[in-house]
Amino acid sequence: MSFNSFGNLLRVTTYGESHGTAIGGVIDGFPAGLEVNFNAIQEELNRRKPGQSKIVTQRKEPDTVEFLSGVFEGKTTGTSIGFIIRNTNQKSKDYNHNTNIYRPSHADFTYDKKYGIRDYRGGGRSSARETANWVVAGALAKQLIASININAFTSSVGDIFIDKPYQNLDFSKTENNIVRCPDENSAEKMITKIQEIRKAGDTIGGTITCVAQNVPVGLGEPIFNKLHAELGKAMLSINAVKGFEFGSGFCGAKMKGSEHNDVFNKDGSTQSNLSGGIQGGISNGMDIYFRVAFKPVATIMSSQQTINSDYEVTEITGKGRHDPCVVPRAVPIVEAMTALVLADFWLLNKSRKI
Amino acid sequence: MSFNSFGNLLRVTTYGESHGTAIGGVIDGFPAGLEVNFNAIQEELNRRKPGQSKIVTQRKEPDTVEFLSGVFEGKTTGTSIGFIIRNTNQKSKDYNHNTNIYRPSHADFTYDKKYGIRDYRGGGRSSARETANWVVAGALAKQLIASININAFTSSVGDIFIDKPYQNLDFSKTENNIVRCPDENSAEKMITKIQEIRKAGDTIGGTITCVAQNVPVGLGEPIFNKLHAELGKAMLSINAVKGFEFGSGFCGAKMKGSEHNDVFNKDGSTQSNLSGGIQGGISNGMDIYFRVAFKPVATIMSSQQTINSDYEVTEITGKGRHDPCVVPRAVPIVEAMTALVLADFWLLNKSRKI
Amino acid sequence: MSFNSFGNLLRVTTYGESHGTAIGGVIDGFPAGLEVNFNAIQEELNRRKPGQSKIVTQRKEPDTVEFLSGVFEGKTTGTSIGFIIRNTNQKSKDYNHNTNIYRPSHADFTYDKKYGIRDYRGGGRSSARETANWVVAGALAKQLIASININAFTSSVGDIFIDKPYQNLDFSKTENNIVRCPDENSAEKMITKIQEIRKAGDTIGGTITCVAQNVPVGLGEPIFNKLHAELGKAMLSINAVKGFEFGSGFCGAKMKGSEHNDVFNKDGSTQSNLSGGIQGGISNGMDIYFRVAFKPVATIMSSQQTINSDYEVTEITGKGRHDPCVVPRAVPIVEAMTALVLADFWLLNKSRKI
Amino acid sequence: MSFNSFGNLLRVTTYGESHGTAIGGVIDGFPAGLEVNFNAIQEELNRRKPGQSKIVTQRKEPDTVEFLSGVFEGKTTGTSIGFIIRNTNQKSKDYNHNTNIYRPSHADFTYDKKYGIRDYRGGGRSSARETANWVVAGALAKQLIASININAFTSSVGDIFIDKPYQNLDFSKTENNIVRCPDENSAEKMITKIQEIRKAGDTIGGTITCVAQNVPVGLGEPIFNKLHAELGKAMLSINAVKGFEFGSGFCGAKMKGSEHNDVFNKDGSTQSNLSGGIQGGISNGMDIYFRVAFKPVATIMSSQQTINSDYEVTEITGKGRHDPCVVPRAVPIVEAMTALVLADFWLLNKSRKI
Repeated sequence: MSFNSFGNLLRVTTYGESHGTAIGGVIDGFPAGLEVNFNAIQEELNRRKPGQSKIVTQRKEPDTVEFLSGVFEGKTTGTSIGFIIRNTNQKSKDYNHNTNIYRPSHADFTYDKKYGIRDYRGGGRSSARETANWVVAGALAKQLIASININAFTSSVGDIFIDKPYQNLDFSKTENNIVRCPDENSAEKMITKIQEIRKAGDTIGGTITCVAQNVPVGLGEPIFNKLHAELGKAMLSINAVKGFEFGSGFCGAKMKGSEHNDVFNKDGSTQSNLSGGIQGGISNGMDIYFRVAFKPVATIMSSQQTINSDYEVTEITGKGRHDPCVVPRAVPIVEAMTALVLADFWLLNKSRKI
Repeated sequence: MSFNSFGNLLRVTTYGESHGTAIGGVIDGFPAGLEVNFNAIQEELNRRKPGQSKIVTQRKEPDTVEFLSGVFEGKTTGTSIGFIIRNTNQKSKDYNHNTNIYRPSHADFTYDKKYGIRDYRGGGRSSARETANWVVAGALAKQLIASININAFTSSVGDIFIDKPYQNLDFSKTENNIVRCPDENSAEKMITKIQEIRKAGDTIGGTITCVAQNVPVGLGEPIFNKLHAELGKAMLSINAVKGFEFGSGFCGAKMKGSEHNDVFNKDGSTQSNLSGGIQGGISNGMDIYFRVAFKPVATIMSSQQTINSDYEVTEITGKGRHDPCVVPRAVPIVEAMTALVLADFWLLNKSRKI
Repeated sequence: MSFNSFGNLLRVTTYGESHGTAIGGVIDGFPAGLEVNFNAIQEELNRRKPGQSKIVTQRKEPDTVEFLSGVFEGKTTGTSIGFIIRNTNQKSKDYNHNTNIYRPSHADFTYDKKYGIRDYRGGGRSSARETANWVVAGALAKQLIASININAFTSSVGDIFIDKPYQNLDFSKTENNIVRCPDENSAEKMITKIQEIRKAGDTIGGTITCVAQNVPVGLGEPIFNKLHAELGKAMLSINAVKGFEFGSGFCGAKMKGSEHNDVFNKDGSTQSNLSGGIQGGISNGMDIYFRVAFKPVATIMSSQQTINSDYEVTEITGKGRHDPCVVPRAVPIVEAMTALVLADFWLLNKSRKI
Repeated sequence: MSFNSFGNLLRVTTYGESHGTAIGGVIDGFPAGLEVNFNAIQEELNRRKPGQSKIVTQRKEPDTVEFLSGVFEGKTTGTSIGFIIRNTNQKSKDYNHNTNIYRPSHADFTYDKKYGIRDYRGGGRSSARETANWVVAGALAKQLIASININAFTSSVGDIFIDKPYQNLDFSKTENNIVRCPDENSAEKMITKIQEIRKAGDTIGGTITCVAQNVPVGLGEPIFNKLHAELGKAMLSINAVKGFEFGSGFCGAKMKGSEHNDVFNKDGSTQSNLSGGIQGGISNGMDIYFRVAFKPVATIMSSQQTINSDYEVTEITGKGRHDPCVVPRAVPIVEAMTALVLADFWLLNKSRKI
C-alpha cells in the first residue's frame, strides 16, 4: 500500500518536490526484452515541459530524464526501472513570500493541517511538476502497448469548445498548434483566449478529450477495477482535474435506454458506441473515449485576500512563473496516464488464463 | 491485489452472482470495540432492495444479511467480518432465452470474450445485485465515522433537474418520496417521468448528488490516492455510472481563476467552496459534494436487434424484472461507497503520526 | 492491504472464528474455464479435519465446504469464488472457564491487549480451525497447477526423525498411516510416541518436510517476493510454526562454498541441489524442498499456573478436544499453502512477457 | 503489487544493479515531523559497506546516500522520500568473462531463463549491493521507533557457535570486532576461521541472531501478517539466507508442551519466553529474538565446472572482489529489515483504533 504509487502489475512509484533536488520514480513490473526508444520518452517530456510556448509558464526546465537501472544494452531486463529528473531552474525565492501564507484554492492549507509541515517552495509535492514523472512512465508504457493508439487533445478552453465529434478530427494535427487542438479553427480561438486571459493576469479552465483506439477486447477487471474506474481515478489524480466522463457521460444521464443502447453489428462491433468502448468495466474493442475537466489555475497575478498560518487575513499576488491555462501541457499527461492504465490491464490479462 | 476488493486499511472483498446461491463478502481492517447497530445495516439494505416501490424492479428479495464472524457479543472484535446474503427469489428461467444472446449495452459480450464462459443468469457477476454487498459494508463504515454526515439524493431524472443548490435542501426529506429527491416538487415530476418511461417499456438515466458534511481536515493521500480520485473510482465502480464531478466539476472548466478561487475566511473555511471540500486531494473541512451520472438501464421491454455468440443477428425483448431508472435505488449505494472511502482514509490518517 | 488475505494475483481472503457461525473465504483471481473437482477439495478437507484418527483431536466436524459463486456448470468463471464451512459441533461450554483466563503460550493475552475484546470460545480467530479455509483454497490451486506435484509428510515427531533423504521415500505411502510419514518404520514409532504423550496429558512438537516436483523454471519474483520468502511466510502463517528452512537450510550455514555450490549438469540441472530448487529467489526446475518446525500444542491436560485479565494468578487445566501433536493434520495445510504460493507465481509469470 | 517493494504502511520500493549507474529507492508512508539524523543513516551504511575490514570484500564503495525529497529543513514532511546511492567503483571488466557463463549457485541461470536477458555485471539486480537500499530505509525506520532496541550479531561462523544465551551478552560490544560478535572469545575464533577460509580461496556460512527489546504489546496482524511471518519473509529476502527460526525454533519441535509453555508472571510477562516475544502472531512485550541462516558465498576463488548459456560445459574461477563470509556485513541488514517490519506494524497499529 503505497500512496505515491500507481498501477497494479505495472506500477510506478514517485517522489519529488517542485523545488527540491530532484523528482523521479521507480517503474516496477515492466516486462523484459523491450528495446527502449529513449528519444520518444524525452519527446513526451518535451511536450509537457514548461517554457515551450508563449501560452504556458515561462519557467525553463530542461526536464532531462536519466534512467538508472532496469535497462541493459538498450533493452528492459525485467527488473525495476529507476529514473531521475534533476531540478535545475528553481527560483525558490519567488516563493519566500509564501512561507506561511495559504494561497486560495491551493493545497497549502490542507498539507499544513495534515502534516504539520510543508515544503512551501513552488507548492512542494503538490506541484504539477510531479506529473513529469508520470509522463516518463507513461511514455515507456506506450512502447509496451504500441499497437494501441492513444490520442488526447484540448477540447475546450473556457467557453470555446471544439464543435466536431472526435471521429471528424485528424489527430496528426494536434501538435501543429501550441494549444494542442486538432481543429485549427478552434485552436486559433483558444490561443487568443488564453493570451487575453494571461494579459489580464487571470487564468482559465478547459477540457481534454482522450481517445484510445485499437484496444483489444477484454481489458479491465470487473467489480472494483473496472477499466473506466481506473481511467477515472488516473485522470482525477492529475492536478486541477474536477471531473471525468466516458462514452455518453453526463449527457447519457438525460437519455432513454432505447436511445442509449449500442446496437451490435454482425462482427461484434456496435453502431453507436455510447458505451465509450467499455461494457461492464471491460473493453469491447470499440474506441475508448473520455473527457476530463480542468479548473482554472489557482495562481493568478492579481491581488487576492487570504489568510496565513496564524489565521490572520492578508493579501497575496501571484509571483513565480505559472500557466494561464493548464490544458495544453496536460495533454501528454492525460495520454501518459491512459497508457499506464491500459498497459497495466494488458499485462494483467495475460495472467487470467489457465 | 484483489479485483473484487475495495479500500486500503478498511477493505471489503466480495463475491456472488445475481442468480447464484448467495452473495457476500469479507470486511477486513475494521477496528475492534464498535457496538454494531444491525438494524441500521438492514435498513440501508432495505433502501436498496428491489420491490420497495412502484418505480423500481418488482423482483422481491428479502436481502437479509447474516453476519458470520468478527462480531462477538454485539461488538466488533478487530478480526475479519464475514457476511452472506442468500439469494432466494431467483427466476433464472427468465434468462434462459439469453443463454447465448448478447444483450445490447450489457456486459454479456465482454464477459464472454474475456473469460470464455459466463453465468448468464441475471447478468451473473455483472448484475447490480452485487451492490447489496457494498451497502452492508458501507452501512458498517457509516457507524465507524458516525460524526460525518453523508447524504445522497436524486438530483435529476432524464431532463428533470432539481433546481436548487444543495444548501437549500432538507436532507431529512429525501426518504419522504420514492425517488429519493428532497425537493418535493421535483420529486413529483421525476416520479411521473419514471412511470411514463416504464409504461413505454423504456428506461431513463439520471444523476445523484452526494454531500458529506463535518468531514475532518486532512483525509486523503495526495498524489495517487487523492480523496476525490478515490471517491471518483468508487462511484465509477457502480453499475451504469458514466461520469463523476466534484465541486465546480465540468462547470469549473469554463471559469476563470479569479472567479473560481475560494477565498479563505478567518477561521480557515472558504467563502465559495468551488473546490468541493478537497484541495490537493485532501479534505479541507468544508462540505464535500459531488455528482454522479447514471445511464439509462440497458434492459428495455421493447424489441432490439442484437447478435448471439455465433455472431448471428437476432432480436431480444427484455424479460425479467428490471428498474426503469436505477437512480432511486442507487442513492444508498452512493452513500455506502462514500462511507467506505471516508472511513478508509479516516483510519489511515491515524497511522500518519509519529 | 488486507491482513486476512494471502497471495497476489491468486488471492484468498478469509474469515471465521472457531466457535462462530461459520468460517469461509473468497478466492480471487482464479482463471476461468477450469473444471472443478469438488471431491478432491473435500478429500483434502477430510485429511485436515478433526476426529479422523486416534492421534488427533476427537472434535467431530464434518467440515463440508459449500461453494457460493464463481463456478458455473462445474467450471470456474473467472469471478471471485466465495465458499463457506458452517461450524456444527461447537462445544463452546468447554471454554466458559476460559472467559477471562489467559492460557499459557496461546494468543489469549495478545489478542486481548491488541483489540481490547476477544471471542474466547475455542481461541476464536486464532484457532487453527481457520486453516480449513486455506485447505479449500489450496486444493483448488492444486487443480490449477496440476502438473506440479506437491508432497508434504511428517519428518519428525519429538526426537523421532525419519532417517532417509526424501529422494528415498515413496510419497504414495504417506496416507497409509495416520501420522502421515511415508517411512513405515518411522511412522510406527511416531504414532507410539504420540499415543504415549496423549496418555500423559501432554503434547509434542514435530516437523514437516514438503517437496514440490516438476516446478517450471522462472517462478518467483526476485528482491522482495522471492519464491522461498513467500513459501517461508506461508509456512510461518500456520499456527504453531516456529521455523522454516529450505534446501541446505541451517546445515548450510556450517558449510564451505566449495562443498555447498551446486555444480551444473549439461542440461541445466544441478548435481547436488543444496539450493533447494531456488536460486536468487527464482525456481530453477530442480525439486523444491523445505522443512517446517511445529511447536508442541499449547493446550495440555495437566494443571498449569497462569493469570487472568485482572492479572490474578490462577490455574488452568485443558478441557475441550485437542491434538496431542499438530503435525499429522498440518500435512495437508502445508501442501495447501505451497500450492497457493506456486499457483500465484505461476499466474504472475504469464504477465511477465511482452 | 510491486515486487521491488517491502512493507505495507511504511513501504520502501527499490531499484538498481550492482554495476549500473546507481541504486536507490522511495520510502513511502513515513510520518511527517521527524527530525532526521542523517549521520546515523550514513553510519549504518558504513557498517554494511564493502572494504571496511580485512575479512570482507575489498571492493571500495563510498556508499554515500543522497536524499532527494520528503525532507524539508531537516524534518520529514510526510511525502515520499527519494534517495540515491551512486555506484562509483564498478570494475565491470572483472565480469566480462561471465557474459554467458552461469556461475554455480548464483542467480545467473534463473534470471536468464525467467527474463531472457540479464545484466551480468556483478550479478546485476541479484547482487547483495541492493541491500544498501534496505539499510538506508531501515536506518530511517529505526529513528521512527527509537524506543525499540534492535540488536543483531553474528552467532556462528561455520561450526564456531557463540556458546552463551543472548541474555548473557553485552550488545554494546558487537561493534568492537570486525566479525560483529559481542562475545570476544568467539569473535576471535570466527575471525581466524574466516581468514583461513579466505586464504584457501573458499567461503563459509554462518548465522545471525537478532533481538528486539522494548517492543510494545500488540504489533502484528494475525492470520496472514503475523509478526514472525513478516520477519521471516524479511530475512528470507536477504541474499544467501536459507532458514529462519524464532523463539524456540527448530528445537521447539522436539519439545513437549509441558516444557515449552511460557508460564505467565503476575505482570503479564512470561518466565521462559520460548515463544520469542510473539504469540498468535502478535508481540507480547517480551524480547523478540530469532536466528537467520546464511549459506556460504557462492563465488569461490578456485576453479569449478559449470555451463554457459549454450549448455556447454566450461570452467569458472571467481574473479572480482567478494566476501569470504557474508555474515559480518549482513548484521546491519538484518537490523534494518527488522526495523522496517516493526515500524510498519507500529504505524499500522495506530489505525486499529476506533
